[in-house]
Amino acid sequence: MTDTQQQIVLASRPSSAPVDANFRLETVALSAVGQGEVLVRVQYLSLDPYMRGRMNDTKSYADPVPIGGVMEGMGVGEVIASNDPGFQPGDFAMGGFGWADHGCLPAKKLRKIDPALAPVQTSLGIIGLPGFTGWYGLTALGKPKAGETLVIGSATGAVGTLVGQWARLLGLRVVGVAGGAEKCAYAVEKLGFDACIDYRGKTAEALATELKVACPDGIDIYWENTGGPLTEAVIEQMNGFGRMILCGMIAWYNEKPKPDAENLLPKFWRNILVNRLSVQGFIISDHWDQLQSFVAEVAPRIAAGDITYRESITEGLETMPTAFMGMLEGKNFGKTLVKL
Amino acid sequence: MTDTQQQIVLASRPSSAPVDANFRLETVALSAVGQGEVLVRVQYLSLDPYMRGRMNDTKSYADPVPIGGVMEGMGVGEVIASNDPGFQPGDFAMGGFGWADHGCLPAKKLRKIDPALAPVQTSLGIIGLPGFTGWYGLTALGKPKAGETLVIGSATGAVGTLVGQWARLLGLRVVGVAGGAEKCAYAVEKLGFDACIDYRGKTAEALATELKVACPDGIDIYWENTGGPLTEAVIEQMNGFGRMILCGMIAWYNEKPKPDAENLLPKFWRNILVNRLSVQGFIISDHWDQLQSFVAEVAPRIAAGDITYRESITEGLETMPTAFMGMLEGKNFGKTLVKL
Repeated sequence: MTDTQQQIVLASRPSSAPVDANFRLETVALSAVGQGEVLVRVQYLSLDPYMRGRMNDTKSYADPVPIGGVMEGMGVGEVIASNDPGFQPGDFAMGGFGWADHGCLPAKKLRKIDPALAPVQTSLGIIGLPGFTGWYGLTALGKPKAGETLVIGSATGAVGTLVGQWARLLGLRVVGVAGGAEKCAYAVEKLGFDACIDYRGKTAEALATELKVACPDGIDIYWENTGGPLTEAVIEQMNGFGRMILCGMIAWYNEKPKPDAENLLPKFWRNILVNRLSVQGFIISDHWDQLQSFVAEVAPRIAAGDITYRESITEGLETMPTAFMGMLEGKNFGKTLVKL
Repeated sequence: MTDTQQQIVLASRPSSAPVDANFRLETVALSAVGQGEVLVRVQYLSLDPYMRGRMNDTKSYADPVPIGGVMEGMGVGEVIASNDPGFQPGDFAMGGFGWADHGCLPAKKLRKIDPALAPVQTSLGIIGLPGFTGWYGLTALGKPKAGETLVIGSATGAVGTLVGQWARLLGLRVVGVAGGAEKCAYAVEKLGFDACIDYRGKTAEALATELKVACPDGIDIYWENTGGPLTEAVIEQMNGFGRMILCGMIAWYNEKPKPDAENLLPKFWRNILVNRLSVQGFIISDHWDQLQSFVAEVAPRIAAGDITYRESITEGLETMPTAFMGMLEGKNFGKTLVKL
């Protein structure tokens, strides 16, 4: 057993898109395992778009990562030492270890993972936070009804995968938007979406034209993962009493306001009013109480093959920054993980 | 009894703010009173911001007024002939007569008004559509809780008057925004608002500075009547889980998109997400089933003096266009009515 751990810290804040110099790999001594604590050797680390927000020094729903602090994130791995009766060496645990190959956390901040239920890394994806986000947001906020039309960007991402497949199971028409022909084919052929539009190189006007074909009855639910031109294209096609679920806006995470852009707000505001839309921002961590219901409902459907998923895995802690930067540009395909 | 009526029709569509030439006064023969119909001599006509939308030839929740068509609107007056057993001459009735001094409508499209309950013209204001809009939106969509802070533009308008006073009765801190010192003094002294900010000549930044003083605990509910710089000033001060109720946006009704304006949408979208805001567009005509509950709840509070109101009345059908254009510029003070 090693007595050091490797970790990646925030070396500096990005001015727009993150670059290598914003990250630094460090080796530090392993923490001593205090009373009630559990030491985990991490096997998989999750990469998620929300991490981009933590790199900014601005008010958000969570504090920013301080300069020199370990980048935040969730991981899953094997318990190698425990000072808590709830965990034994050999157990699998998931928690917020950060971008590090080991993590020592209080037992109450860990979730025990059953490796017999599904591969342990799915606790970071389809039956982890991204899947839970999709399930909760769709069912509790989207109020989906059979026959309605749902549009989702980042269709083949970790959240979109679950949202779209679950909506199909509920009888909705599902139109995805993704980057590139391969992802679009996957969304239709493997995930069972009714259509998938390739957004690459298209303006809001061009996307609107394709959406009108794919959504002949308009759009009832828009799952907002992306922002950008897709959002512009969608707003004019929302049906009365439609629901817009704001979960992320990856296209805008790296963007500064454009002083020369058309002012879109009046158009959006007017559509929200005229069509009686509801727009609901949400953060899944407000809804932990629903997590067990989610796992109980969704895990069996994955085991039964009704819900599929895909992973985009690189190996080695040092690949985290590159994989993260690629994900923000849409280079990943499925749930982005790093295997240690 | 006259055999003609006067009415104002839409002569042409405005390109931005309406002008006199967009309206034309006509004299036409009175309609014959058909089976089940009721003829009303109108005493008061209502002027409301939504009428601006009807002048545009664009998709909205209601059809536009056609060129040459009578301008839409609600009025109240005395029944002078009836072919329906539910109405007798001498009764008072409210309905969508348009901008006209007489109206002949099916009885089922009229609401009988009890002149003993309150002055008949209040059926167009504080206990009519504007008051109902405020009551329904605040209670059903705003989900107000004692101790929270509510901000409302057009504070002394027909809707704002009811929203602010009702919120005060429910124990909220109420901050109004209005045009000019006289309206602001009225909001605080007569309507009992905790503060009122004069928006005239102020940028979004200046309004934000004043809002921070008036709302030391942030903003929980924003009643959107106005759009414009106030909306920009509010968004950054919304508390987590705040509610934005989109009822109108009078500042934007006459406005074309500004190609040189800062693109506000990403900022708004980000705040909605990060603060888990809900934004709900609504149109009161979806909620007629609640009208009787509203009248039953609010009318006694008006009679008791807990809720006050103010009217801005001009005389003569020919004053409708000028009074309407003035209202869009904020020149009215209270519910805008024209007495015939």
